[in-house]
Order: sequence, then C-alpha cells, then structure tokens
Amino acid sequence: MGATNGAGNEPHFQILGTRPIRHDGVEKVTGQACYGADVHLPGMLHAKVLRSPHAHARICRIDTSAAEAMPGVKAVVVGADLPEITPGFEQVGEMPIQFRDLSENVLARDKVFYDGHALAAVAAISPHVAEEALGRIEVEYEVLPAAMDLKAAMAPDAPILHPTMRTQGGPPKDEPTNVASAFQFERGDLAAAFEKADVIVEREFDTGTVHQGYIEPPNVVAKVDADGQVTLWCSTQGPFDIRGLSARLLDLPLSKIRVIPTEIGGGFGGKTTVYLEPIAILLARRSGRPVKMVMSREEVLRASGPTSGSHIRVKMGATRDGRITGVDCWFGYEAGAYPGSPVGPGGMASLAPYDFEALRVEGYDVVVNRPKVSAYRAPGTTNAAFAVESVVDELAGELGLDPIDLRLCNASREGTAAPAGTAFGPIGLVELLEAAKAHDHWTSPLVDPPANGATRRRGRGFACGFWFNGGLQSSATVGLNPDGTATVVTGSPDIGGTRTACAMIAAEELGLPVDRVRPVVADTDSIGYTDVTGGSRVAMATGLAVLQAAQDVKQQLCARAARGWRISPDEVHIEDGDVVGPDGSRKTPAEIAASAGRTGGPIVGRATLSAHKIAAPSFAGLIVDVDVDVETGKVDIVRATALQDAGRAIHPSYVEGQMQGGTVQGIGWALNEEYVYDEAGRLQNPGFLDYRMPVANDLPMIEAVILEVPNPAHPLGVRGVGEVPIVPPPGAIANAIHRATGVRMRQLPMSPPRVLAALDDAD
Amino acid sequence: MGATNGAGNEPHFQILGTRPIRHDGVEKVTGQACYGADVHLPGMLHAKVLRSPHAHARICRIDTSAAEAMPGVKAVVVGADLPEITPGFEQVGEMPIQFRDLSENVLARDKVFYDGHALAAVAAISPHVAEEALGRIEVEYEVLPAAMDLKAAMAPDAPILHPTMRTQGGPPKDEPTNVASAFQFERGDLAAAFEKADVIVEREFDTGTVHQGYIEPPNVVAKVDADGQVTLWCSTQGPFDIRGLSARLLDLPLSKIRVIPTEIGGGFGGKTTVYLEPIAILLARRSGRPVKMVMSREEVLRASGPTSGSHIRVKMGATRDGRITGVDCWFGYEAGAYPGSPVGPGGMASLAPYDFEALRVEGYDVVVNRPKVSAYRAPGTTNAAFAVESVVDELAGELGLDPIDLRLCNASREGTAAPAGTAFGPIGLVELLEAAKAHDHWTSPLVDPPANGATRRRGRGFACGFWFNGGLQSSATVGLNPDGTATVVTGSPDIGGTRTACAMIAAEELGLPVDRVRPVVADTDSIGYTDVTGGSRVAMATGLAVLQAAQDVKQQLCARAARGWRISPDEVHIEDGDVVGPDGSRKTPAEIAASAGRTGGPIVGRATLSAHKIAAPSFAGLIVDVDVDVETGKVDIVRATALQDAGRAIHPSYVEGQMQGGTVQGIGWALNEEYVYDEAGRLQNPGFLDYRMPVANDLPMIEAVILEVPNPAHPLGVRGVGEVPIVPPPGAIANAIHRATGVRMRQLPMSPPRVLAALDDAD
Repeated sequence: MGATNGAGNEPHFQILGTRPIRHDGVEKVTGQACYGADVHLPGMLHAKVLRSPHAHARICRIDTSAAEAMPGVKAVVVGADLPEITPGFEQVGEMPIQFRDLSENVLARDKVFYDGHALAAVAAISPHVAEEALGRIEVEYEVLPAAMDLKAAMAPDAPILHPTMRTQGGPPKDEPTNVASAFQFERGDLAAAFEKADVIVEREFDTGTVHQGYIEPPNVVAKVDADGQVTLWCSTQGPFDIRGLSARLLDLPLSKIRVIPTEIGGGFGGKTTVYLEPIAILLARRSGRPVKMVMSREEVLRASGPTSGSHIRVKMGATRDGRITGVDCWFGYEAGAYPGSPVGPGGMASLAPYDFEALRVEGYDVVVNRPKVSAYRAPGTTNAAFAVESVVDELAGELGLDPIDLRLCNASREGTAAPAGTAFGPIGLVELLEAAKAHDHWTSPLVDPPANGATRRRGRGFACGFWFNGGLQSSATVGLNPDGTATVVTGSPDIGGTRTACAMIAAEELGLPVDRVRPVVADTDSIGYTDVTGGSRVAMATGLAVLQAAQDVKQQLCARAARGWRISPDEVHIEDGDVVGPDGSRKTPAEIAASAGRTGGPIVGRATLSAHKIAAPSFAGLIVDVDVDVETGKVDIVRATALQDAGRAIHPSYVEGQMQGGTVQGIGWALNEEYVYDEAGRLQNPGFLDYRMPVANDLPMIEAVILEVPNPAHPLGVRGVGEVPIVPPPGAIANAIHRATGVRMRQLPMSPPRVLAALDDAD
Repeated sequence: MGATNGAGNEPHFQILGTRPIRHDGVEKVTGQACYGADVHLPGMLHAKVLRSPHAHARICRIDTSAAEAMPGVKAVVVGADLPEITPGFEQVGEMPIQFRDLSENVLARDKVFYDGHALAAVAAISPHVAEEALGRIEVEYEVLPAAMDLKAAMAPDAPILHPTMRTQGGPPKDEPTNVASAFQFERGDLAAAFEKADVIVEREFDTGTVHQGYIEPPNVVAKVDADGQVTLWCSTQGPFDIRGLSARLLDLPLSKIRVIPTEIGGGFGGKTTVYLEPIAILLARRSGRPVKMVMSREEVLRASGPTSGSHIRVKMGATRDGRITGVDCWFGYEAGAYPGSPVGPGGMASLAPYDFEALRVEGYDVVVNRPKVSAYRAPGTTNAAFAVESVVDELAGELGLDPIDLRLCNASREGTAAPAGTAFGPIGLVELLEAAKAHDHWTSPLVDPPANGATRRRGRGFACGFWFNGGLQSSATVGLNPDGTATVVTGSPDIGGTRTACAMIAAEELGLPVDRVRPVVADTDSIGYTDVTGGSRVAMATGLAVLQAAQDVKQQLCARAARGWRISPDEVHIEDGDVVGPDGSRKTPAEIAASAGRTGGPIVGRATLSAHKIAAPSFAGLIVDVDVDVETGKVDIVRATALQDAGRAIHPSYVEGQMQGGTVQGIGWALNEEYVYDEAGRLQNPGFLDYRMPVANDLPMIEAVILEVPNPAHPLGVRGVGEVPIVPPPGAIANAIHRATGVRMRQLPMSPPRVLAALDDAD
C-alpha cells in the first residue's frame, strides 16, 4: 500500500509522522558539512567590497588605479562593469523584477543609497590584501540629505532618492516621490459596518527594521572558464534564482551558469537574491581565477536585505456580542533603497484570520535610505499582525470577552472570504483556537513571579497568525539502486529538514526503511527547474514531486515484474513494497532493480510540477506568559506555547523545530531587534553584540502543539510549516505586557527603554 | 523535424556530423578543469600505500605500531581491516566478479602476489609524513618462488599462486594449478576444412604486458561522515562501478556512497575498478578526516591493471583461389595475480573479420606474479589480432594474392556467422576493405626512404580489426531552462568527447544551437544508474538515452502548447524546433519554458535504457608504411591511414581523434611498450622514461577515414568508435616489416633489439 490515501480514509503511514534521525544531522553536528566558506579551489582569489559610508550621496569620481597597481591585486570592478539595464519590470516566473534596481543594488552607479551600499570590489591573493586595496580606491562623494525612515520619506519636503520615481497604483501625479507604489483594497460596506459596531478601536503602530539574523553570512565562490562558462558555489535558498538573476544581470544564457548550492546556515527569506554573485563572476572573469567572497557580519547587517520597518494604523469595530464588523487599515512599509516591500501580502495576511463583513486596506511601498529589504519568514506579516492582534485584543478587553473567544467568534473557516475575496477551503483556525483555549497553558492560573521578583509583573497574552504558503515549481527524481536502496534528488536547498521529509515520503511510498533512501540536493545542472526554498513550499511541493517520482518508480517496478512473468502490468500489485503477481509470486524492488539491465535499463522515477493550485494556507497561535520588570522595562518570556496547523506533519520534530524557531525569531522582533542609525544615517549596531537576538538563556522551552487539518489538494495533506510561527509573537507579547502592566505597547521592539517610558507615561 | 529517421531515408541533420567546439575544451586547455588531484577539502589528510617489493611472498608478520606512533600520522590500515569475503563469483549487473580477489588486490592478506601489491596504507598530515611512516611499518616476508609469465606458470613444476585454485571449464582435475579457467569452442568440421585447404600456415606468437598509459594517475578523495555516509571524488570511467565495488568490499548499502567523478585524464579501460577507493574510505573513517590518495607513476605501472601478455598459436588454411577454410587457435593469456584475463572476448574478436567454414578456439586464463590485468581498449583483441592478421598476411603471400583481396574474399558481412555462432547484422567490413583498397595510400607506389636512409628499408602492411561494442545501461535527463536553453545530464564520464556528442544529439532533436545545450556528467546521486564509460558504448547508448529524453521534452512541449491553445496534443507538430498549431500559430521552446510554471511545472525529459539489443559491432583497418633501420632494428612509422566504420559519426573530429589515438596506442604496443621484470620479479621500467610510449615526434600525422554503415538498431545509426582502432596496428606493422625486410616478427613489442635479432637470424 502506498502513502497516498483517498479523502475520508485516515491514512496509516509507516514512516510519515515518525521522527527518524535526519540524514544530514551527523554531518552537520560534527562540522563536516560543506558550507560555502569551506569551498576552496586551486589558485582561488579572495575579494572584498568597498561600501558607502554615506546614507545618500552622489558618486562624483571613483579612481581604482592605485588599488589595481597594488601587488597581489588581480582584478577590480565598479558598477560600470555591469551591463546597463533598461528600467522597468520584467516577469521572471511568477515574480516581476526590476533588474535595473537589482543591478544597482549589487554595485552602485551614480548614487549610493544607504550606508553599506556596494560600489566597488577587489580580488586579490588574500582577503587581507583585498581589504587593504579597498582603502586605496579613491571615491569623491557629494553627500546628500537622507530619508532615513518612512515618516521622513513621506514628508512633503523629503529628500528624493530616485528623481524619476512616480507612484505606481495611486492617483496619477507627475511629481518626484519616495512612494514607489500605493494600493487600496475595499470589500463590503465599511461605513455600515462601523455604524453597526458598538465598540471601535483605532490605533497606530510603528515597527523597526529587523534582520533575518541567519548565522552563516552570504558567500560565494565563482569560477569562470576561459569560454565564459560559470560555476558558482554559494549559500542560497534558490540556486535556480541565483542562476536566473546572475544570468540576467550579466547578460548570459542560463545554460552558461551552474549553481552548486552548498549547505546553508540559515536563510529565512534573506538568501533568495544576489549580492555577491555577479561581482564574483565579474572578478573571476577578469582575473581568470576562481574568486571567493564572504560577507562579514557587519556587511550582512549594513548591506543585505532586512525586513521592512513600518507604520500601521488599524481601526476595527465590533458589536457588544463579539461580532467584529469591519476593519480599516493603513500600512506604510519601508522598502529600503529600491521599491519592493511586502506591504501587499503582509497587510492582507494579517487580516486573514477574521471574517470581516467589510474591510478597507491602504498600502504604501516607500523607499528610504536603508538597505533594500528582502523576504523574511511570512514576509511583511509579523509587523502587521502585531497591529491587528493588538487591536483585536483591545476590542476583547473593551467587550469584556476572553480574547480567544472573540477570535473564535470571528474566525475564518471553510467558505469564509479571505481578505482578497476568494473563499477559504478547509482550514484549521477554529481547531487551533479551540486547542489553545483548552490547553493547560491557557486554563491554568497565572502564578506570581518568584520571590526575588518584587519588581516583576506577570501577564498572559495570545495572538494568532496566518500565512498563504507558496506553490511554485519543483522537480524530483527517484533512482532505484541495484541493491534496492534509493536516491531522491531535488533542487530544494534544505533549510528546515526537507531533505529528510523528502526521503521519508519516498521511503513511505516505496516501502523502504528511511535510512535506505538517500536524499540529495542537486545543482542547477543536475535536476529540473525548482523554485526557491521559501514560501513554506518545499515539504509540500517538492515533497509532492518526490511522491509522484516514487509512484513513477512503482509503476516501472510493476511493469518490469509483469514483463518477467509474461503477464500484463494490470495483473500485478504492490504489497509491503514488493510486487505481487496474481498467483502470489513476489519480487522485491531489490530483485527487480538487480536485473534491470535485462529488463529495460535503470529504474528512475521523475516528476515535475507546478503547485500553485495545491498550496494551502496555515494558521498559528501563541500563548505567552511574560514577566515585565517595572524598574528596568525588561520583558522575560516565562512560558510559551505555540500551536499550528501543519496539515500533515511529515516529521513532527522538524515541524516543532520550525514552530520553535519561528517563535523565537518573533520574540526577538518583538523585544529587542532593531536597526539603530545615527544622525548621519550610519548603522550603529552592525554586529550581534549590539543587534540583540534572543539566545538560549533568554528563553524558556517553547512547547509546540501540532494540529493536522489536511490540505485536501495534497495527497498527503501537507500545508507547509516554515513561516507562520513567526507571526504571532509580537502581538501575543504586547497583549501579555498589557495584562501584566495595563500598558499597551504600540512600537516594536518593545525594548526595555520603550517599556520603561510607556510605564512612566502610564504613571 | 527531429534527428531520427527511418531506415532508407538519408537523414538531413543540422548538427550531427558537424564539428562544434567541445563544451569542455576551453576548460581543459586552460588548465581550469577539476581533476581528482585538484580536489582539496578542509582538514584533508594524504595517504600513501606500502607495496610489496617481492613478486611472491608470504606475509609472516606486519607491525604498524611504529608508524601509528609517528607524529602527524592519523590512521593506518592493513588487509585485515577490510571485511572478509567468501570466495566465489557474484553477479554484478552483467559481470561475474570475484570479490574476495578484488579485496585482496586492494590490500593483500596472507600473501603478496606481485611487485607493487598493496599491503598497508598510512594517512597523515602530509604526503611526506605518510611516505616516511610507510618506512616504519615492519613486514616480515617469506619470499616464495614466482611464476613470472605464462610459460612459467603453466610449467608442470610451476610455483602455485593460489593453492585452492582448480581449473574452471577444462577437464576436471583436482590438483593445484595456475590455470584459472580454460575454454574450447568449435564450429564446423575443422578436419575437413584443413583437408580442403591448399595452403596451411601455422605460427606461434608472444606478446608482452603493456599498460594503458593514461596520463592522469588514479586518485581519490574520500570523505566519511560520522554516520558513515561516504563521498568519493575520483578519476574513473565508471562512478557507479566504483560505488558498487566499494560498497561490496566494505559491506555498505549503495545509498551510503556517493561518487563524484572528476575530470579524467585518460582511462582506456584501466579506470574501471577500485584500487585506492576502499583504502581511502577506511582511512577517512578511522581518522575522521577527508583523505586524499594519488598514485605515483611508479605505482601506476607496478600496481594498477595492465593488459595480458599472451602466447598464441594460429593455424589457418586456404584454397588456391583465396578461400580461407578453417582456423585452429590456442590462446594463453596472463591474468596477473588473480583470474580474469580477456582471453575469451579477445580471442573470438580476432577471428570475427573472417567467414570461416570451421573453427576451433582453445583459451586459457592463467595467473602469474604480475599485477592483475584490467581492461584495455578492445580488451584482449589487439594481441590476438596481431597473430591472426599476421597469418592471414602470410597466407596471402603464399597464395600470391593482394592481402586486402584475400580479406575481401573472406570478409564477414551481413548474415555471416560470427565466431560464436550468431549471424552478423549489417556491418561495414566489406565497405571498409574496398575503401582501403581504393585509397591513395594503398594504390600509390612505395617511394624509397630519403637519401640519408641508406640503412632503411621501407614496407607497407595492412591489417584489420573487430570489436563487439558494448550495450549496458544508461540514464539521461534533459532539462529545459526558462530561457529555452537546455541541460543534458548523464552519468557517463567523458573520456572521448561524449559530453559534446550528447549535447549535439539533444541540440539536433530540440532544434537548438549546440552551445545553448549544457552537457553535464553528474554524480551517482544525481542521475539514474549508468554503466561504465567503456565498450565504446557511450555515444551509442547514453547518446540514445539523451535522444529519448529530448524526445520526451518535445512531447511535453507539444502538450503544453496544445493546452495553451486548448486543442489536443495530436493537433500540433514541431517544425524547426517550434511547436506549430493547426492554424499555423507557433510557440518557441523558450516561450513554452518561460510559462511552464503556469502550465504544469518544469519541463524535464527523462530516459533510461538497456542497450544490449541495440549495440552493434564495428571494424577498423590500418594501412601503414614503415621504415626499418637494418643497422639498429628501429622501426619508424612513415605513413598511416586508419579506416573505420563508425555507423554514424556524431562529431567527426572526435571519431578521428579516437581513430588516431587508438592507432597510436596500437603502435606503442607494437613497437616499444612492455613490462621488463628482473630475475627477482621486480619491475625494472616503472616510469615513462623506460616504459616507452610513442610521443608526437615518433609519429606521422595519421589520416583517418570514417565510413558510415548505420547501425540499424539505433535511430541515429551509431555504432561506437572508441576501441577498435587499437586493434590493427601490430598486425599491420608486422606485415609492413615483412614487406620491408622479408622477416616475420612474431613477438611484441617489435623493439629494435628484437628486430635486429630477427634480421640477424634471417641472415
């Protein structure tokens, strides 16, 4: 019996839902896994990037001659070495991309737009020589006033970053602006909805810039042969994206670039675009030698894409009996130096848990003199949900209702119109809210902080969150070895255990022990096109491709066995992994594989798919207890319980890991993380000592409660689990702080000075 | 229109038959290609092998403690560290293998069987430390008498290598022997055939041990993770074979080993088995660090597999009118230390050009105290053809016939019973002989050697040759990139231009320029099972898999386009690479590929096959003019014309390259190459100064004449071209020496001292 089951039959899996040791685990914990920085080629050079010290400046002159003359320097490149690209959007797969912006973000041309903006690079015989040579590049800047945040950028007299920019999507206005685009979305009669409401809450929120904080900095080794053939080794979530973007920026056909993804030490959305790769290719081409580049932590924070800071206004009304009637939101998101914040999806996703009669959403994508933002786990949703979940909580308070009850009363369920209008299929939010309400963490009374905590106040909060989950394209092959073991090949870099999930899916389908299945992440030349590891799509979409490829193997096994028995393939079936004939004769896959040379050649299953009709959303919730130290403003997480609808948990430990990891990142965003710029627009905390991410001793064990409301479009019911757990924490913690202290925090991070100030204000 | 054509229609190809620049050419000539010795991993150790200085000895004691205690030494292994294996044959795919022998050849147990036999290995922080540590391993030998060649090994009082060995296949005899196996094959009434003959020639021949002489020595880097997962980088013709052999020798499932084939600097059959790989795995496992091993040239010659030395007797009769009636042959082949010479295929192949009424073949596989032989280009055929083609030439002389006429008169053709009995399909021997006979080289008169060559005598000879060509299994995938370029993935290491041949086949089928197709040789985890690059099978079998995978892509293109037009796939067709609808609308592959995400996902074609019913044999011939210096015995090649039936020449330059390269290796075998052992059984010439291979200035330009008699079982007509050109040279040169001097050389190599001695004898 295979892994797939028709709807209605509770499937009985042998392997799915168990917790085998991950295939890449030992390699990683023993330090043997090969990360980008471990790649070493003969004759390899090391390159470093010259970065702008100014937030906004015109490059008047750039002279690299002294650097080029330095002994040990083998190549120098500047922005002019990249091909010119006509401005405008180009459709790449399902994404519109402004390649001109991307190119200028890789190496600035006329202007630099943020502290850390790359403008030249040097390849030399050692990183130290390269570093020293950077100091010999002479740059003459004309420093310009900077628009450091949304407010400044939207002010009437704001310094304009891109003089040709006109707002897309808003009322047509032919004047320079920093508002790259605007959208408005309305559904239902909002005025009537607010009219009907007994209580209306309207609040404003601000959230800071935060970084994904992956541990491994971006890196690349580029090798360019004399005929222009490029090989890249790099840490990326999307090797095919790196290939596509690099090819476009350098005007190369895709077949000229091979991207070999190394192991990846975290990405969280941040490793989905190019920073170093085109530079490394240029330098390797020019020097004729392989070139390695690794960002320092300072470069990571100054120059790779963080998420958007935002200003948000939410107005929500509800009737006395707990029915939320309507919502009116204003979302302004910082895009960084070039357009492209996640204001659209983030804003919409924050509203998805609720069934609004009427809603109105207004959104603005605004350029500021900060690094161009990149995706970060459920892009744009965490900060928006902080606002929405705070307002929902405040409504519950006004109405005297349990906050989970209020959410249950208004929860989206199958048939509810999602914010953008289409109806949800079966979703697990109601189940999740009911599980939260019944959970011991929610039902047990708050105990007082310990005796030494006289200044500590304890409170409990809840919030929920939503993420769409992506579909996109995946390819997989499953090869049966002559001894009956199998190899699963995908093009999805493994950032959350998906290698093992794919191996489990193949093992389940083929009736093999999971350790006899070898999962491999192949390079872009060795597997069919596969979209980015992101959007919580890999276990769902790539996993489905693996399932189909394994089914293809089974069909071939049946055909081969039937051929041996001289009967039709229809007459055989598979039982416990073996092919069984009508007379009960059996052949194991190993037997069939061993004789494949005499029955038609190797047995290789293959599948490619586009999963956009298969993807299904997921919901998460967080119950959190905090202690607020009213003397210092420090907030400690005392207990945390994360709940999530996984659809189907292929490997529950990794689902729990994703839930815990996402929760921790949400906690960091909520309490500590933010970019701090000085007056001149220079980043003041580009390091992990000053950019404060939570570490183990900041946190309690986070309990993870997995719910399984299967995705009916997926044969295994998988939804995707990676992103949504980051969404609830800021809202839940803000709500808990309010319960503890009576103070509503409406700015992220809720760091000690801010909490203290809010407490002082309240006094 | 696609690349395939039905029989009878002369196909019109755009790309096949042209000579594009090879895809890997620039990388190789600029030194950027990554060979095994270029692989460098962090923390890597270097290992060296302790080898026996004796041809035959018992290992009484081996003490590695001093080596292990040496600073910098990280691991030491001896034979006992390899798992014990029960003697006996095991079927691996289509090959029976004695794994016990293979294991002992990797690391000796109780006895060493040849000078150079490995018995221990040391991994250390540098090759020098490892080398020094080898000297600290104490080994106590009991030196035994050695059987250094076939004659000695078959003598009644011969030292016995393996006391339990009994001859397989001969008359049963329960006594120790060095004759591992014997076979007899008879067809027709031989006595009657010789009765009928007017002339009978019976001669004996001896040929020495020669080595493939690949430039790049065997090498490996092994990485073993703490959970036992193995990755190997190595220079090999068969990554799946290395995986399978290593797995069996170390008792691992196939899924635990990934073999990444690096570029290969020659193989010629010699890189199809394991020498270093299991040792490197053991050392890496024991030390916990990656281990690199590279053989020195001395090790290559002393310890890797050369080809068989042989003793051959051929008796052949013919009638006055040039009809060869029967042949009676005796082939004794040296197997080296363990059984497994190519006496069977080699002996049979040497007879295949002729249509004998009756034949009798007797063959012996004999172990001797030399390294275990390995395959070498048309294994076992060159030395046998030297004998057969010499006798045919002598018959022609006796009969007063042109030697090509005699061959034409007796040539195998479609329907002729091949030596082992089955009838040939369409083959190109008659066409080849007619082309040779008509060639300017054959028809133009011999000119005298130049004036300064008063001691030189000039002669012309001809010989032909046959090789079966292998089928075996191959896999291929063809991925269409979103910009319409394509990637071709195979598992066949490229030793003769097959990467480009595969790209050309895909380009032809897909209507793409060949430089928009990227051919890739993938590792064993990233492509379906694929047999060795050997048997002249890759362009034929892997090429066919590529063709089928490209056809699979075309089908998908049609289906996607039809879907877009909302018609049935039957209603569209492909024209000049584009999909064309019934109303003349067109879609390019690039357009279809760019929107694949909306039409069902990535487009990847796949094929696996077993080609044993598709393989077809090929024939070669060589016309050669030689100058024999009667004072020194030195033979110079003055002019050489190689002819060969390629079936279909995908890339004529590579076919010519194979013909020229094979001819040169045959010339080396004919004139200079041989293993020279001293009395004690130590190899005296383990280096390229003393083991004399032909270099460019030894040779004239070799003209290559390609004939194309299509293989009807193959849609492109391909036969395979790599091996057969090595077969004719020794016979052709011996025949030319006879024409020049009147002397028949019946021993290889026909080196100056031997030629001089033969001239002296004739005087």
